[in-house]
Amino acid sequence: LLCLCLVRPLILASDMTYVLWFQASSESFRIERDTFGELRVPSDKYYGAQTVRSTMNFKIGGATERMPIQVIKAFGILKKAAAEVNKDYGLDPKIADAIIKAADEVAAGKLDDHFPLVVWQTGSGTQTNMNVNEVISNRAIEILGGKLGSKDPVHPNDHVNKSQSSNDTFPTAMHIAAAAEVHQVLLPGLQTLHDALAAKAEQFRDIIKIGRTHTQDAVPLSLGQEFGGYVQQVKYSIERVKASMPHVYELAAGGTAVGTGLNTRIGFAEKVADKVAALTGLPFITAANKFEALAAHDALVELSGSLNTVAVSMMKIANDIRFLGSGPRSGLGELILPENEPGSSIMPGKVNPTQCEAMTMVAAQVMGNHVAVTVGGSNGHFELNVFKPMIIKNVLNSARLLGDASVSFTNNCVVGIEVNTERINKLMNESLMLVTALNPHIGYDKAATIAKTAHKEGLTLKATAVKLGYLTEEQFEQWVRPQDMLGPK
Amino acid sequence: LLCLCLVRPLILASDMTYVLWFQASSESFRIERDTFGELRVPSDKYYGAQTVRSTMNFKIGGATERMPIQVIKAFGILKKAAAEVNKDYGLDPKIADAIIKAADEVAAGKLDDHFPLVVWQTGSGTQTNMNVNEVISNRAIEILGGKLGSKDPVHPNDHVNKSQSSNDTFPTAMHIAAAAEVHQVLLPGLQTLHDALAAKAEQFRDIIKIGRTHTQDAVPLSLGQEFGGYVQQVKYSIERVKASMPHVYELAAGGTAVGTGLNTRIGFAEKVADKVAALTGLPFITAANKFEALAAHDALVELSGSLNTVAVSMMKIANDIRFLGSGPRSGLGELILPENEPGSSIMPGKVNPTQCEAMTMVAAQVMGNHVAVTVGGSNGHFELNVFKPMIIKNVLNSARLLGDASVSFTNNCVVGIEVNTERINKLMNESLMLVTALNPHIGYDKAATIAKTAHKEGLTLKATAVKLGYLTEEQFEQWVRPQDMLGPK
Amino acid sequence: LLCLCLVRPLILASDMTYVLWFQASSESFRIERDTFGELRVPSDKYYGAQTVRSTMNFKIGGATERMPIQVIKAFGILKKAAAEVNKDYGLDPKIADAIIKAADEVAAGKLDDHFPLVVWQTGSGTQTNMNVNEVISNRAIEILGGKLGSKDPVHPNDHVNKSQSSNDTFPTAMHIAAAAEVHQVLLPGLQTLHDALAAKAEQFRDIIKIGRTHTQDAVPLSLGQEFGGYVQQVKYSIERVKASMPHVYELAAGGTAVGTGLNTRIGFAEKVADKVAALTGLPFITAANKFEALAAHDALVELSGSLNTVAVSMMKIANDIRFLGSGPRSGLGELILPENEPGSSIMPGKVNPTQCEAMTMVAAQVMGNHVAVTVGGSNGHFELNVFKPMIIKNVLNSARLLGDASVSFTNNCVVGIEVNTERINKLMNESLMLVTALNPHIGYDKAATIAKTAHKEGLTLKATAVKLGYLTEEQFEQWVRPQDMLGPK
Amino acid sequence: LLCLCLVRPLILASDMTYVLWFQASSESFRIERDTFGELRVPSDKYYGAQTVRSTMNFKIGGATERMPIQVIKAFGILKKAAAEVNKDYGLDPKIADAIIKAADEVAAGKLDDHFPLVVWQTGSGTQTNMNVNEVISNRAIEILGGKLGSKDPVHPNDHVNKSQSSNDTFPTAMHIAAAAEVHQVLLPGLQTLHDALAAKAEQFRDIIKIGRTHTQDAVPLSLGQEFGGYVQQVKYSIERVKASMPHVYELAAGGTAVGTGLNTRIGFAEKVADKVAALTGLPFITAANKFEALAAHDALVELSGSLNTVAVSMMKIANDIRFLGSGPRSGLGELILPENEPGSSIMPGKVNPTQCEAMTMVAAQVMGNHVAVTVGGSNGHFELNVFKPMIIKNVLNSARLLGDASVSFTNNCVVGIEVNTERINKLMNESLMLVTALNPHIGYDKAATIAKTAHKEGLTLKATAVKLGYLTEEQFEQWVRPQDMLGPK
Repeated sequence: LLCLCLVRPLILASDMTYVLWFQASSESFRIERDTFGELRVPSDKYYGAQTVRSTMNFKIGGATERMPIQVIKAFGILKKAAAEVNKDYGLDPKIADAIIKAADEVAAGKLDDHFPLVVWQTGSGTQTNMNVNEVISNRAIEILGGKLGSKDPVHPNDHVNKSQSSNDTFPTAMHIAAAAEVHQVLLPGLQTLHDALAAKAEQFRDIIKIGRTHTQDAVPLSLGQEFGGYVQQVKYSIERVKASMPHVYELAAGGTAVGTGLNTRIGFAEKVADKVAALTGLPFITAANKFEALAAHDALVELSGSLNTVAVSMMKIANDIRFLGSGPRSGLGELILPENEPGSSIMPGKVNPTQCEAMTMVAAQVMGNHVAVTVGGSNGHFELNVFKPMIIKNVLNSARLLGDASVSFTNNCVVGIEVNTERINKLMNESLMLVTALNPHIGYDKAATIAKTAHKEGLTLKATAVKLGYLTEEQFEQWVRPQDMLGPK
Repeated sequence: LLCLCLVRPLILASDMTYVLWFQASSESFRIERDTFGELRVPSDKYYGAQTVRSTMNFKIGGATERMPIQVIKAFGILKKAAAEVNKDYGLDPKIADAIIKAADEVAAGKLDDHFPLVVWQTGSGTQTNMNVNEVISNRAIEILGGKLGSKDPVHPNDHVNKSQSSNDTFPTAMHIAAAAEVHQVLLPGLQTLHDALAAKAEQFRDIIKIGRTHTQDAVPLSLGQEFGGYVQQVKYSIERVKASMPHVYELAAGGTAVGTGLNTRIGFAEKVADKVAALTGLPFITAANKFEALAAHDALVELSGSLNTVAVSMMKIANDIRFLGSGPRSGLGELILPENEPGSSIMPGKVNPTQCEAMTMVAAQVMGNHVAVTVGGSNGHFELNVFKPMIIKNVLNSARLLGDASVSFTNNCVVGIEVNTERINKLMNESLMLVTALNPHIGYDKAATIAKTAHKEGLTLKATAVKLGYLTEEQFEQWVRPQDMLGPK
Repeated sequence: LLCLCLVRPLILASDMTYVLWFQASSESFRIERDTFGELRVPSDKYYGAQTVRSTMNFKIGGATERMPIQVIKAFGILKKAAAEVNKDYGLDPKIADAIIKAADEVAAGKLDDHFPLVVWQTGSGTQTNMNVNEVISNRAIEILGGKLGSKDPVHPNDHVNKSQSSNDTFPTAMHIAAAAEVHQVLLPGLQTLHDALAAKAEQFRDIIKIGRTHTQDAVPLSLGQEFGGYVQQVKYSIERVKASMPHVYELAAGGTAVGTGLNTRIGFAEKVADKVAALTGLPFITAANKFEALAAHDALVELSGSLNTVAVSMMKIANDIRFLGSGPRSGLGELILPENEPGSSIMPGKVNPTQCEAMTMVAAQVMGNHVAVTVGGSNGHFELNVFKPMIIKNVLNSARLLGDASVSFTNNCVVGIEVNTERINKLMNESLMLVTALNPHIGYDKAATIAKTAHKEGLTLKATAVKLGYLTEEQFEQWVRPQDMLGPK
Repeated sequence: LLCLCLVRPLILASDMTYVLWFQASSESFRIERDTFGELRVPSDKYYGAQTVRSTMNFKIGGATERMPIQVIKAFGILKKAAAEVNKDYGLDPKIADAIIKAADEVAAGKLDDHFPLVVWQTGSGTQTNMNVNEVISNRAIEILGGKLGSKDPVHPNDHVNKSQSSNDTFPTAMHIAAAAEVHQVLLPGLQTLHDALAAKAEQFRDIIKIGRTHTQDAVPLSLGQEFGGYVQQVKYSIERVKASMPHVYELAAGGTAVGTGLNTRIGFAEKVADKVAALTGLPFITAANKFEALAAHDALVELSGSLNTVAVSMMKIANDIRFLGSGPRSGLGELILPENEPGSSIMPGKVNPTQCEAMTMVAAQVMGNHVAVTVGGSNGHFELNVFKPMIIKNVLNSARLLGDASVSFTNNCVVGIEVNTERINKLMNESLMLVTALNPHIGYDKAATIAKTAHKEGLTLKATAVKLGYLTEEQFEQWVRPQDMLGPK
């Protein structure tokens, strides 16, 4: 299994990618040539003329806008798989093996600084496919003792791109990258959050508190029940994401230029999908319909829709927790959130629900990303959707942000949540809504009178009830029992 | 089965609802009273004081903004189911039966003009629940020979709303309405479109045409393959919608005020879900977690996400068809779309792809509706999400628009699409991209020279190839065969 | 001035439009004919064959999806203006005057039930333009004593549509309708809200309360300052909407089919804009560039962007008010919101912030509408954007919902807001953040120790400070004065 | 003027920021301490404990998610301005001058790799404000010969943050950064595009071509008129962005913690705004209402709305150009777009409209960013909106992408557009819509017969007209003159 190479290392380490990526200081160049003429290529880079040409034609957005490294790694896996299948179909084993070795290095992230292109390029991702072809061919040439840029004995198009087109390889890399990010970052992150919330729900099972509907006081529930709602949302988040994956597991590889599979061999598509599945440990299959797989990205719009739903859940949960933990004196104050950093340079003792804030910002971003994906997905024409790099950038961003934020939120907030029992009890016992329990005994109207009188006079329900002569203190204590209001009878 | 009553009759007939709904001319009134005082209620209406009060407090948007009638009908089903279960649990059979009969009438759409409230009311939909309770109780009172407004012998709260709260009934009605609309309008509409496209794909199987990527000429495919991509998109649209339904089948009924089920009996929730399932023929079950079911609407956000993906597919398909049918002289002109109406008051002979336009407008609307649902879904607080009426309005609107537009697009466009064979052949035969087939015979470089020369000099590939002396006319005809370029070998 | 006819009458009265609009019971028909053949038209309707044909071809969505009546009324104004100008340019005065009279009736809403078409039609709105032409010509024929459907002596195309095309009239009607809705509903609504909030800000000027940042306790401000922030948001909302209007005042009329003005006379465009300005009292001018005015709807996307910003402001304000008014016992409880309706069928005394809920639902809808407008606006092709009906539907919906909701929110919530002074004082006096005032006197570190000790031991700041021996009770009372913390010094 | 320091250097050069930013290899550390305990800080970094703590607590998203460097530079300007004003109010000149020097370096981008924090932190941006305070204080200490981390003689809070709070400084930096990006990247980019399109419109003034409405053939216009529509869109884009700036020029500085200005001096706010205006050359003023300026970000939502409208315009223009340039043989083929790179590894001669694709992807991204900004903007609570870093990230991203893409699109596409005159003439002369010109001479009905016959029989209009005996060849040539159809008469 090659899947390890996709595992995200310590935070930001993958971002070392960006280190030195644009070597302004490169002093030596080699001359490469494409059909448009000669170009100078930094001599310490494996990429070639087409990559350099793209950096010249698309000066849009800068380094933060580079093609996500996950796409590059996914291309490494795909190129390896294709080379193995091409070898089966007759590609010179020496060339194939060199390609496989070079592709392995790409997949392992060893050549990250050879991929300088930004997302805002051709909408098919052709230039990134050529970037990959150039890097692998030059690295393979080097492995075989050849001369960089010579295209000999390993040609970027004829060998590395054999039986492939940008039009089928880029969507294939999109799906591999998306599936990997979902499995390696998002789902583990959500599971972490789920488990922590479930543990809290269990821990808080017997803590009875006031409910709130319309942000107003309502009948009681247990804090465990309240957290149980969050647990359910995260559980369903995981289900939703998983339910979106089957179409993502479909790979376009083998469709070549327009989906027909021109210039491929019968069986190529299936074999490549099998290889990718084996390399990643994920159940990839060849796409049922290659025309759909090139011309549309409905599968990723669908996945993005699930991420959007997850974001909606996260917004709800994080909002609740920050309000329930608001205070320390003038908020709801039922929860005590962990203090992670000094809150204010002016106000001592101020603690802010910063993890909730990071999570809700992530949620807003994911909602926005989803609209970008939707617009891009809807604007394909004929045999090719040309919003590919933009779509995958947003899907990967959403998946990673939600996954990372879930872990951060869990470790730095959820697991440390404590309960202000005194406050919870006080609020619940003062609640006028407990009067609801009297309905069966004295009727709705008298109950209403008690509640309204208590509210107007600022008294407790019990004092009011007794004062009004509707019942005795003993009766009140017997009938108004929050612990009996937590379920059907 | 009661499900027939949900079937949408001929177009717009359900909209007779709106007829006379606000009887400005009502001359007689009865006085009803709620805890806030007396109100005049039109004497020919079944609703009561709380409904009238809501019309006074929420003058927002007018008749087009009324609570969707599908929600009212769903409430009819729910109130019937609840009455049946309450009867099992001891509710006076005479009262229960009258409620059941009245609820049947609501579900059947017979009382549509007794529901004047708009969507922009309380975010829990409480006022619509009370509107339903008032109408059913008054109608049941009438059935039993009582006096309207007397609340005797059928009380809107104590009897019609028994074991219920707005907080669990409204989301239950939301899910029933959404599921019904999906099953009765959306899925049949999509299936109609799917079948028509599939028939066209079969009909066009052997028509070879030029492919287009990046909107530019590319290698050929068959028109059947091109339509096959659309078929796949619609097939997956149906799958996506269906995959979103399991959480929608979960009903909140039995959760009452905050999800605990306070004031219900053990088993009530399950029995109500069973009844609703029986009445609708849809696999409703009781929600796994009532707290989640009241406080969040992730299930409808998820469904809306699927509708958004369907919209993305529809935008692609309708866009393609209008461009492929563009002309008659100056467009791509490969398809001949049905002429349904005069195109222009100035330009004779002008035919416009109006069905494509209606479909793409619907797609844009659904994308917008989805954002509204997302924003509403994300802003719930504590035990109750209070964007309920807005959320269901948008989900129902999206489902119906997509379903109706699919049928309209199918009947008035897809089934009548014809092919301009002459044009298709001409474009394909002129295409420079066919040169790709020469690569294996004369090499990429010579092939490129042929293509570029032909392009520059405006010649055919064949003429250019022969003129350049690379091959003979016979060889060209043998090697460049579009019909051999449609798949792997 | 005709502008009165645009004034929205009492709520929902314009919706009487929908009354009886689809006369299933129509028993008599006349036969009309267009270039596609014969059709039966209800004999009591002024519309003709093209309208009927559209109802047959576009069965999408039902009555709630009808073309907004504001667009129809705007067409009435435009057709009147065009007829007046055509009369100047030589149109038979008898015909022109009849058209003007009929158009007046359309603008006045007297013929609303003769416009049955839905939004989901051709994307240029051609069928609605023809609906208008048919109704006006038939009504004018009737005025002149002719026979309905005869097109004599008033022809829908040759006379009513003279010098016009759907392509320039529909966008003109869009702009007239949008501007009218903004001026008659939205801006007055926002002004109403602004004034009510400003009055409250003044009323609350001297009430000092705890501030909250990150939802956590912070240093104090006055309630008047807090409301002053809302006032500023609404003031800027009004500015933003007004700043969006200049491009909306540009009218496409005179551009005819593609923007060239083919078949119009020099000066026609300017004269029509002048007439519309005179009829409406709004500063309409002829569009600077007719090609832009037909092919794009950037002006309405821009306006929708402003409505989106207004929605953002409304969400903030309504959210704050419901949280500040949350309780009555277990929330923040600083504000007392008006009780407008019974809150709960189970829980006596429960009052919900329903006006805030309606407003926030409206805000979410407007955000969604904006995305629909954005998608539609971006997808125009060549000389015509064909998302016109969808775009104007959403813009009008957003403007009206925001305007209506502002009035409802003002009248039923803002003006009745009262202050729970006792609660506000208690929270403020308990606040640990007041310790900030001690920094200059005893230093940050001792102040922090006081705050943290007070928090841990649940004491007041004063008690803690004295107990720790850092200062005397008198010093505390002299130094910690919230009223001195409300501004710079 | 310091504004030069904000000028974006050559593409990606600012991104050198990211180079080596996370020195995993740092071998030496110093110990710093905050109120939460001791932390190891890399000895070669100026930041301190609070920055390090944030990197530990917010492992979300990696290096591409870092706080935009424009925000850091804006902070440099703000801190310099504040120090100058504080000096006026009595801050020790030696300390003030060191702060000013260090802040200058931050503004100039010399310390970029000392700002490692990501966007997904506290929603107030407090940690970035502290990062800036720490870096400036340590650098100032160094300048003054002190010891890093000693907080002596320059304290990050007491001196660098004097009279400031994160709550007013971060929004101030947001506005400075947004205004700078708009003025330095977006507006120049749009102007470049505008001018290039205007030059093309002039160049194409006399080229008459077929118009297209509904994607179908329509009456003619000149290519100059068609491009003139684009020019107008870009002209209005510039106007729209500029019209959004006044509220962005309002600075929150001086509001401190909740907007009251607690702990500032009277006049501080105004003086700081003046200084920032002087340093940047932009007309910044102090915010009219500081409460609004902290609690809401309507000004940036408004700006984002304008960027969204610009994106809508760009999508239209880029879409048109790629379709008009589609081909080379099977598309519309009226325009010849520059060839910038090899189009396909399989298909020789294939040229793709890659600049259009980059532009439309950017447009989709901006639409998505706008939704993220909208959601974030709407979710502020009480005295502070805590979606600040997310909001500014998206606004800056949209501004830069649109600006950069405009330049790229101009230089690599627009300026090189050529016309396929032969094709344009052929399409126009074949067009059936020219028949419209015969209406005044032979009537609409005969004209229609000519068009329909010509369409059915595949003939020219002239041949058909003569064959039908409606007019002579001479008459046809006299009456059907496209050059006379380009405007009113």
